[in-house]
Amino acid sequence: MEAIRWKDSTLYLLDQTRLPTIEDWLRYTDYRQVAKAIQTMVVRGAPAIGIAAAYAMVLAAQENVCKGNFPAAMSQAKAVLAASRPTAVNLFWALDRMENFWLSVGPDLPRLEEEARAIHLEDIQMNQAMGLAGAELVPHGARILTHCNAGALATGGYGTALGVIRAAHAQGKVSMVYADETRPLLQGARLTAYELVRDQIPVTLICDNMAGCLMAQGKIDLVVVGCDRMAANGDFANKIGTYSLAVLAKHHGIPFYTALPSSTIDRSIPNGSCIPVEQRGGEEVTGLAGVPTAPLGVETWNPAFDVTPHQLLTAAITERGVLRPPFVESLSYSSGR
Amino acid sequence: MEAIRWKDSTLYLLDQTRLPTIEDWLRYTDYRQVAKAIQTMVVRGAPAIGIAAAYAMVLAAQENVCKGNFPAAMSQAKAVLAASRPTAVNLFWALDRMENFWLSVGPDLPRLEEEARAIHLEDIQMNQAMGLAGAELVPHGARILTHCNAGALATGGYGTALGVIRAAHAQGKVSMVYADETRPLLQGARLTAYELVRDQIPVTLICDNMAGCLMAQGKIDLVVVGCDRMAANGDFANKIGTYSLAVLAKHHGIPFYTALPSSTIDRSIPNGSCIPVEQRGGEEVTGLAGVPTAPLGVETWNPAFDVTPHQLLTAAITERGVLRPPFVESLSYSSGR
Repeated sequence: MEAIRWKDSTLYLLDQTRLPTIEDWLRYTDYRQVAKAIQTMVVRGAPAIGIAAAYAMVLAAQENVCKGNFPAAMSQAKAVLAASRPTAVNLFWALDRMENFWLSVGPDLPRLEEEARAIHLEDIQMNQAMGLAGAELVPHGARILTHCNAGALATGGYGTALGVIRAAHAQGKVSMVYADETRPLLQGARLTAYELVRDQIPVTLICDNMAGCLMAQGKIDLVVVGCDRMAANGDFANKIGTYSLAVLAKHHGIPFYTALPSSTIDRSIPNGSCIPVEQRGGEEVTGLAGVPTAPLGVETWNPAFDVTPHQLLTAAITERGVLRPPFVESLSYSSGR
Repeated sequence: MEAIRWKDSTLYLLDQTRLPTIEDWLRYTDYRQVAKAIQTMVVRGAPAIGIAAAYAMVLAAQENVCKGNFPAAMSQAKAVLAASRPTAVNLFWALDRMENFWLSVGPDLPRLEEEARAIHLEDIQMNQAMGLAGAELVPHGARILTHCNAGALATGGYGTALGVIRAAHAQGKVSMVYADETRPLLQGARLTAYELVRDQIPVTLICDNMAGCLMAQGKIDLVVVGCDRMAANGDFANKIGTYSLAVLAKHHGIPFYTALPSSTIDRSIPNGSCIPVEQRGGEEVTGLAGVPTAPLGVETWNPAFDVTPHQLLTAAITERGVLRPPFVESLSYSSGR
């Protein structure tokens, strides 16, 4: 399963706002439209956003290679893409990597395209590596809780948290995956359940507020989620609701893991309080799947992410292995922004 | 605001499955249809279910007063109503009270009707009393989190948890009410937000998975929820998600209260493990209002309630005052089933 394709100098994105009922591939030749696709979550998930942005920079280069002032045009494209979403650091990491590359090689379209493809391919390889590393943490017969979608759809392919689950399932260790539906945009119901049903991995869908009750009944052996940005001390931002799960896991003595490629680590910030958290529109909360669910005029609060302090994290699963506390030390050996 | 009316020997229920977009009063003259209305949640909320069941017993008496074997017919009606939903004890409490009454007075329609009206009126009075008692616990400028709907719509009128909020608001103490939307059936979004917007009490709607983040940001001063059944030791069942909030409140040092009339106390069971928890259909989790939100074939888990252990409860607010731990002692002075 994949959600990002590059073919004939054109970017194709599987429209994730319409899954699972409609599988619609959208075609992009203008980086501005890719920025809009990131903002409206046609493509979402920290690694996938980075990959889409890298290809968008190739589109910007195609547009500007024969015009004057290539560097200024590319800087502008980078700024437009960087403004699409604030929290996931992979976006800025991919844009910086593409910028450093064209600053070095110049407006060389084939090589720029190759660099974007490399970012894409490396992401899949990193997911597979972290899947194998993370599977070591999964006991036989495991019942695993996950939140949002950190799967093939959120990455170049295979997935971070779902990569760990896929690898553990391939080893015959997974008894059941519980997927939080993940309001307001239901990435757990629409995307994670969809991926797992397709891969014939056993999955049970629950509402977000049922996770604590599941834990209290002894039905969860571990929690694994994705990550949108991790600070130097191990604090990390992920989809809203992750923090609640971390507190609940701590209360019940359940291991709590995040899986992330090193491009998600932002060592430029000391802790989670420095991570900008995107606030999204209230209409996501006052409706569900296009149906109004709340009275007109009600106020809303809709942060897209929350920050989980490192004290609640058992370990971070990366392509370089499993990082344990103290994270400020274990993370210092990992690359990143 | 009210959701239950009795007029001209007929029961009227405001259809709570269609709020807030449609205000539709349904008319009932057959107790079997009332049982169905309870099951399908046209009427919901522990006290409101009890009141509706009491009126339904009057409908059963009307049907059978001129037929032979009144006691057998009434017993059958009671059994049908008792089978509608398993968790809220007020249902059984109201049915027992009506049964004891007609066993004593016989098939006396005016007096049976008067008894059902008394159950209804007493409920409103108890809500007002617990509102005043609970308001004492609310500090000035309070930011209060609530879950599901324990309001006028869930009771005879005024509300239990929302009764406390209404009384505190009348005293000028409430700065903001945060309402969990409460998946899967969205009673927080559809009913609590609706009640509070109508009463011009400041309300902010959030998704269930945002409550922990709100607490971490210091934006919640107390949590108050309703109750569907409380055991003799203070363990209590309430809408799914309540337990997670209780754990989160404990983690953040935030007072956690439940408001309940004494008819919700079930001293016949020693603890929460004896409370039967209703499991509802998966279609509530896989969609909303006919719109599918999950892939076909996905398994679901959909308990309607969870049980919060008394250790996580700061105090129980009843019409007889605020009960503190040890609840096994403070509850022993309260009546109930």
